[in-house]
Amino acid sequence: MCGTCGCGQPEKPQQRIIELEKDLLDENNHYAHENRQYFQEHNILAINFVSSPGAGKTTLLVKTIEALKNHFSIAVIEGDQQTDLDAQQIAATGAKVKQINTGKSCHLDAHQIGHAIKDLVLEKNSILFIENVGNLICPAMFDLGETQRVALLSVTEGDNKPLKYPDMFHSADLMIINKTDLLPHVDFNIVECSDYAKRINPSIQLMTISATKSDGMDDWLGWLSRAR
Amino acid sequence: MCGTCGCGQPEKPQQRIIELEKDLLDENNHYAHENRQYFQEHNILAINFVSSPGAGKTTLLVKTIEALKNHFSIAVIEGDQQTDLDAQQIAATGAKVKQINTGKSCHLDAHQIGHAIKDLVLEKNSILFIENVGNLICPAMFDLGETQRVALLSVTEGDNKPLKYPDMFHSADLMIINKTDLLPHVDFNIVECSDYAKRINPSIQLMTISATKSDGMDDWLGWLSRAR
Repeated sequence: MCGTCGCGQPEKPQQRIIELEKDLLDENNHYAHENRQYFQEHNILAINFVSSPGAGKTTLLVKTIEALKNHFSIAVIEGDQQTDLDAQQIAATGAKVKQINTGKSCHLDAHQIGHAIKDLVLEKNSILFIENVGNLICPAMFDLGETQRVALLSVTEGDNKPLKYPDMFHSADLMIINKTDLLPHVDFNIVECSDYAKRINPSIQLMTISATKSDGMDDWLGWLSRAR
Repeated sequence: MCGTCGCGQPEKPQQRIIELEKDLLDENNHYAHENRQYFQEHNILAINFVSSPGAGKTTLLVKTIEALKNHFSIAVIEGDQQTDLDAQQIAATGAKVKQINTGKSCHLDAHQIGHAIKDLVLEKNSILFIENVGNLICPAMFDLGETQRVALLSVTEGDNKPLKYPDMFHSADLMIINKTDLLPHVDFNIVECSDYAKRINPSIQLMTISATKSDGMDDWLGWLSRAR
């Protein structure tokens, strides 16, 4: 009978879920370790971009590639449930891109990344951007072996998101507050949002940008330069 | 060895995942059937609200409750990974509210809803709003026994989301395009977005609103009235 709540209904397969999750995460961590070793050996900066759907990951990536493509070899892994719409935008910049469609799955995993980096044939001293599936929950649990995890939050989503989705902001190295050009039209307090993020993750770094208007890009490109 | 891709790495526990997912969904469908029967027997309109984080579900709910609370008994189930911030907003309207924190989990399930409706002691001929976890992927798979599923999409998220997250829009009865007050400031084509949604789900109904500005509320309240 139901062991979760004592309601007398048939038991949920909780124990099986917990065991399978542990196996999945253990396996994922094994692949993530391999990816991380590969990135270190080849001096590759690998950035895992995470956010809600539509927070501006692709727009920021396109602007970033345009700014850096004459200085660095850049490759991109695009994670989406369906379509290659984002990969088409990236390909138009001239960067190498590999699309991963996750189907029913809600996140990228380290095994998929291991295959993608072989397909992409990354150069030494290059930059790899991984655009994860738009989802503030599930991708938090899956280490991809990335050098840095960057969480984008759009000002249209509300300033309390770090409290409501704590795992994601706890696991991120940097939170970028994006779409600051829309601040005059929405109810969003940057100071409060930053305080919430620091409450969840005292070591998180913070930045504000408007990717569409190219505001704050110098801060972002400077951060990337230091991360290398 | 890896049966997914033939890469020679240890096999992923794919078969176990598929079996467990089937068990979980079968079990969920059993509880969903019970909930649906309960709603039908008591003539309760149960609406399952789904969207990305920050698309405006709570704001729309507060406005809807304010408009209807003198005419109907209204209860709300709030699904969030963490915090009861949304439930506090709902409670301030005077509506009955039950918070469910899902922790590591990325969606509400029908078993949780079954417990919550017992705790709420719903009245006959009442309306139950279920605000699901902000996530465009996982909640699509879990029938809660609802009368209608309503997907909110904010114009700040981009008009291609029905193509990128097809399961959610395929499973919805109504897509509400929200935050139309921000249309002058973002790149979003309502006609194209509607075409994409119809391509995924030819029977989906469509509506545009601005919950914060109360634009389109008559259409929405009319739809709710017909749904009863």
